[in-house]
Amino acid sequence: MYYLAIRQFARTLKNLDAILGKAVSHAEARKFDVNNFCSVRLFPDMLPFTAQVRIATDMAKAAAASLSGKEAPKFEDNETTIEELRGRIRRCVAYLDGFAAGDFDKVNAKTMIKVPYPPGKALSADDYLFGRQLPNFFFHATTAYNLLRQGGVEVGKGDWLGTLNFQDA
Amino acid sequence: MYYLAIRQFARTLKNLDAILGKAVSHAEARKFDVNNFCSVRLFPDMLPFTAQVRIATDMAKAAAASLSGKEAPKFEDNETTIEELRGRIRRCVAYLDGFAAGDFDKVNAKTMIKVPYPPGKALSADDYLFGRQLPNFFFHATTAYNLLRQGGVEVGKGDWLGTLNFQDA
Repeated sequence: MYYLAIRQFARTLKNLDAILGKAVSHAEARKFDVNNFCSVRLFPDMLPFTAQVRIATDMAKAAAASLSGKEAPKFEDNETTIEELRGRIRRCVAYLDGFAAGDFDKVNAKTMIKVPYPPGKALSADDYLFGRQLPNFFFHATTAYNLLRQGGVEVGKGDWLGTLNFQDA
Repeated sequence: MYYLAIRQFARTLKNLDAILGKAVSHAEARKFDVNNFCSVRLFPDMLPFTAQVRIATDMAKAAAASLSGKEAPKFEDNETTIEELRGRIRRCVAYLDGFAAGDFDKVNAKTMIKVPYPPGKALSADDYLFGRQLPNFFFHATTAYNLLRQGGVEVGKGDWLGTLNFQDA
């Protein structure tokens, strides 16, 4: 189960990278600097696009690391361009792709996972994954999508979900 | 695992209902009709707030029904007010609350789940949950949140995640 969630984080991040690719094409066609997207916000006191991408990747790599008893790689939070944000997404996907199902063999519902906030607190592995990492990850990935969509990038549900492994019913 | 996802759908929907409650207070304070939120969109060819709430609930109840071999209750898609949308969310939560862990005992990774679209197609239970229902559910719940947030409703991450069961680390 934990591994399935990590695989989905990787898939959604790959889809998000492709969506950023469409933002690049959109900006080229409309002749504006695609990096203008980095600072857009849905509301003045919300976090900008750059932070949405950063936090989505942070949630994914923290989940993979914490649930497998490892330390997550630190990313520097110094991206200033869409290309650098795509690089961050790809580094995160490469990290997630390095995990195998067996890496999560030791975690179970009773495993306690420390959280960075509030300090000194922990959640059970199931609460951590379902109550914190999944809603947070999808919140920030969706908000990144929404910011591009609101900026006129032509993306839809197919871009968000990516290719699903449909079979004949 | 499947049951854990259903419980999280219920929690996120309860949080969304509370967020809609804050939208009501916000509209009262600013002296505008809260139902003006029903038709707001992030971009003209995106679905309006009402549809975001409807689809989030549809994804949650379809997941609970499909993964337990049941038929999901049909909701009429006739809500025209925030109060009616809150009613829909609560009916969905009540439906989800009626499930027990044992209802998902028969489903496993090899179970095939029919999808409404494309017609005649199915996904494995794991692909259905992680690749389709979870990303879709959180996409629409997040977009509903974002629409209210963009409309000035004072909500934050605490409202989105709700109360987590923190323990001392």
